[in-house]
Amino acid sequence: MRRLLLLVAVFLISATSFAAKVDTLDIKSTAMDRTLHAAVALPDSYAKSKGNYPVLYLLHGAWGHFNDWLKKTPDLNTVKDLADKYNIIIVMPEGEAFSFYIDSPTLKTSQFETFITKEVIAKIDGTYRTIANRNGRVITGLSMGGHGAMYLSVRHPDLYCAAGSMSGALDMGTIRKVESADEVNKMFKEVYGPEPPSDEELKSHAVIGMVDQFKANNMPLIIDIGVDDFLIESNREFHRRLVYEKIPHDYIERPGGHTWQYWQDSLPYQVLFFSKVFKGNGSAVKN
Amino acid sequence: MRRLLLLVAVFLISATSFAAKVDTLDIKSTAMDRTLHAAVALPDSYAKSKGNYPVLYLLHGAWGHFNDWLKKTPDLNTVKDLADKYNIIIVMPEGEAFSFYIDSPTLKTSQFETFITKEVIAKIDGTYRTIANRNGRVITGLSMGGHGAMYLSVRHPDLYCAAGSMSGALDMGTIRKVESADEVNKMFKEVYGPEPPSDEELKSHAVIGMVDQFKANNMPLIIDIGVDDFLIESNREFHRRLVYEKIPHDYIERPGGHTWQYWQDSLPYQVLFFSKVFKGNGSAVKN
Amino acid sequence: MRRLLLLVAVFLISATSFAAKVDTLDIKSTAMDRTLHAAVALPDSYAKSKGNYPVLYLLHGAWGHFNDWLKKTPDLNTVKDLADKYNIIIVMPEGEAFSFYIDSPTLKTSQFETFITKEVIAKIDGTYRTIANRNGRVITGLSMGGHGAMYLSVRHPDLYCAAGSMSGALDMGTIRKVESADEVNKMFKEVYGPEPPSDEELKSHAVIGMVDQFKANNMPLIIDIGVDDFLIESNREFHRRLVYEKIPHDYIERPGGHTWQYWQDSLPYQVLFFSKVFKGNGSAVKN
Amino acid sequence: MRRLLLLVAVFLISATSFAAKVDTLDIKSTAMDRTLHAAVALPDSYAKSKGNYPVLYLLHGAWGHFNDWLKKTPDLNTVKDLADKYNIIIVMPEGEAFSFYIDSPTLKTSQFETFITKEVIAKIDGTYRTIANRNGRVITGLSMGGHGAMYLSVRHPDLYCAAGSMSGALDMGTIRKVESADEVNKMFKEVYGPEPPSDEELKSHAVIGMVDQFKANNMPLIIDIGVDDFLIESNREFHRRLVYEKIPHDYIERPGGHTWQYWQDSLPYQVLFFSKVFKGNGSAVKN
Repeated sequence: MRRLLLLVAVFLISATSFAAKVDTLDIKSTAMDRTLHAAVALPDSYAKSKGNYPVLYLLHGAWGHFNDWLKKTPDLNTVKDLADKYNIIIVMPEGEAFSFYIDSPTLKTSQFETFITKEVIAKIDGTYRTIANRNGRVITGLSMGGHGAMYLSVRHPDLYCAAGSMSGALDMGTIRKVESADEVNKMFKEVYGPEPPSDEELKSHAVIGMVDQFKANNMPLIIDIGVDDFLIESNREFHRRLVYEKIPHDYIERPGGHTWQYWQDSLPYQVLFFSKVFKGNGSAVKN
Repeated sequence: MRRLLLLVAVFLISATSFAAKVDTLDIKSTAMDRTLHAAVALPDSYAKSKGNYPVLYLLHGAWGHFNDWLKKTPDLNTVKDLADKYNIIIVMPEGEAFSFYIDSPTLKTSQFETFITKEVIAKIDGTYRTIANRNGRVITGLSMGGHGAMYLSVRHPDLYCAAGSMSGALDMGTIRKVESADEVNKMFKEVYGPEPPSDEELKSHAVIGMVDQFKANNMPLIIDIGVDDFLIESNREFHRRLVYEKIPHDYIERPGGHTWQYWQDSLPYQVLFFSKVFKGNGSAVKN
Repeated sequence: MRRLLLLVAVFLISATSFAAKVDTLDIKSTAMDRTLHAAVALPDSYAKSKGNYPVLYLLHGAWGHFNDWLKKTPDLNTVKDLADKYNIIIVMPEGEAFSFYIDSPTLKTSQFETFITKEVIAKIDGTYRTIANRNGRVITGLSMGGHGAMYLSVRHPDLYCAAGSMSGALDMGTIRKVESADEVNKMFKEVYGPEPPSDEELKSHAVIGMVDQFKANNMPLIIDIGVDDFLIESNREFHRRLVYEKIPHDYIERPGGHTWQYWQDSLPYQVLFFSKVFKGNGSAVKN
Repeated sequence: MRRLLLLVAVFLISATSFAAKVDTLDIKSTAMDRTLHAAVALPDSYAKSKGNYPVLYLLHGAWGHFNDWLKKTPDLNTVKDLADKYNIIIVMPEGEAFSFYIDSPTLKTSQFETFITKEVIAKIDGTYRTIANRNGRVITGLSMGGHGAMYLSVRHPDLYCAAGSMSGALDMGTIRKVESADEVNKMFKEVYGPEPPSDEELKSHAVIGMVDQFKANNMPLIIDIGVDDFLIESNREFHRRLVYEKIPHDYIERPGGHTWQYWQDSLPYQVLFFSKVFKGNGSAVKN
């Protein structure tokens, strides 16, 4: 009987340990010939289950890293709690300070479209029990990561079944202002090499200009922005273009600016949105 | 051993029974000198607990009744599931076909502001273990009920700590169109008596004209509207006025029209919003 | 014959003199117990005619004076040329640096609503051959004068048959920003006395809040604003409120900011607008 | 003395005759192998002058013809009066019922881009004393002609120095609604041949999608629309896109719908706008 109790105790401790489980993975990028990281929040139920789980890819912003979402939200359990609550795996891959999640046209060292859409997905699907098709994958992110989520999903509708943006930098064509050109160009060196990109090149990556593709894809979208955010005009403009073209999407304006408090407030609505998509297409894991 | 299994089975059945518990209350209105109904969805946890619960008042629309939210959503468990998930009591009071939740200036038989804000609250707080103050009460509704929730909360900020509107008829001054004047006037007889109300009288009840009071109250607000809804312009206008006056609020445009599918989609976001308000002010019941 | 030529020469010189004729009038204000100025541009045709002329009242902006419109436009003949072209008398009365064209609630020395609507009109109608009723009077102005023109016309629809605003300060409730409060309060001393006005008092004078009166008056309105003007949001908001309330008005956004180049560009469209109103109500003087 | 009076009478009659002078020209279209018409309003001053005149090309709408602007305005002298007042030649070329002023991809009989930009211009410059370069040419039109003016000017910035649109059909991609598809397709047969154009083909001609070219051209633009016009949303959207891209333009919303009263009200503002462009680039003829 004591052994039984001991066993139960050990089990409970293990369970607790699993409850807080956030993995850090090394992911080898063949495209970039280097190894990067991703954080993975597994729901508590994962360890006790044998089923496959849907995955939310959650991108960070400029000047950020893969573990931002775990270290910078006022409530440090925000991501893990949502993984638990909705039974989804949340993957936070590295996007570096200014990659904008594109494949650099010049530098082999900055191939983040390939990394996120091929290498990270392959690693995650190879490591965990995932629903390894588009019905089991959604993607969102904040600021540069909002751009990234929209950019990657609109170009790879075969990979994701829904996408979101929080305070997204949806118009790359306007992020290099006259007053900040030097700083932005300096940051862009890691992506575009020593020669700064032309306005046309930047504009060609702006999701605000890809409305036709969004229309063709007809993918569920959720876009939010704080009314005090410096990016509000480009988000409003993107919303209006989607409305004008009758492209279904959720659009939310709420109090706040470009802050971690805002993103912590925003993420639960985004995850609720994605959980309904998973439920609708049969990918949801029941509690 | 068989008896044990039987006991377990009985317990499970009881639990299921509690799980589906939705009460129908008779509520005597002294103001109207008649008795009306309200439906009350109690969370599963309520019966097993001794604590006090926060309450969401959920209003129905025109041509509707207290049990609309239980009978018309495509998934009939929508309301009950949300009560369970967030540990809140959801009260659905009667608002009749066209009361607009105001106190009629002429008819004693239509005093719904008094009914909802005094008599229903008193009955609910007297019947259930509620958090019987503003921190434990929020209010929302659909269409005419969206108007009602905004109207009652902006006039009674002492009673509610947050308010919402789904597809709300936020501009009573414009609901009587030339082409539908006869029908609307006929409906209004129950509220205003044989003489149809003047445009000025209708306008005086429109929440779109109460921006100053909303500013003074500074109450958390969540307002949503479908892009295909015939009420979208008044909702957009209300949003813009709130933005212009820097009044904090969540504003959401999403796919859909003036339908129960839309409201079923909308309610979970509204309840998520309110659950955060309750959590923030200490009224939330933990799972 | 020489005498005839001389006579002709004298006549031509007089005509030339009349052609450039811009009077400066002293106008005694009984309300303020002091004498102020107004500039008056008479059309060339006036001296040769015996008919009565319609009058455009043209208000200046903050930190300005009655002769701004004659001294600050890049082309100094702007106002006179329009008086000639459209056969209207253009009156530019004094509004002082920060009067906002209201009657001060506290200071007898700042009674500009009374001055402009009673004393200036009486003096002009007493001095010139004018069409001395509302059909012969319109009013517009720039910035503070745009506010003034809208404010005075909406409160005195018996005096004017049309009104305009160029780059108008249409929301007095928002002109005192946190960062400029000291300066604005200092300026307001001339109007409100040593005690700065409350936000409510300022708001009560804002034309953006007088939409109901504009609707009741149904007066032709022309409102323009430069897309680079710091006042664009309040002008857009006023336009949207007028559109929402179905109040007829011309609304123009064009290139430019809060500059004299903009106002010189704007004025001809405003005068064209007013000339059509005069033509429509029989007050126009034919060429 | 009688002869003198006779002479005067003859002179007056001639003057009247010149005053009303509107030519109808036959214009051979080599591209379409047929002959079409254009009306030409010459200013009174033209006959008495030896100078070269700037030209306004004024396009008609769908279901219309070259003489619409002379026969359908409530005041039949509208166009001629403006030609006189501003000393410009106003040319009204044929655009047929539904050409949309494009070169048909399939039918040689409908080559209206070539007709308007090459053949009409050549004929006008060959027939009259014009300023035969871009500084002396502007183009505007109503509805389908507003589309035409914007479409031709954005594609031929070497030909025109400014362009306008009145109630323009700025989004060809949305003119074929489900409910009117049959009728529109029938009309399109004259342009596209028996096979109706695809949505993509229509969209490729929509000026709302040519914002980048408008930005590159940096041509002065004036766009107006009535608040009751069924085309208002596409005009608002075009305006917002231009604002978002910081493309200079005048944008006007005014009372009215898709009517000749509206266009008669609108044209004087458009001509005032163009007269300023001509004055600015030295093409204006002085009175």
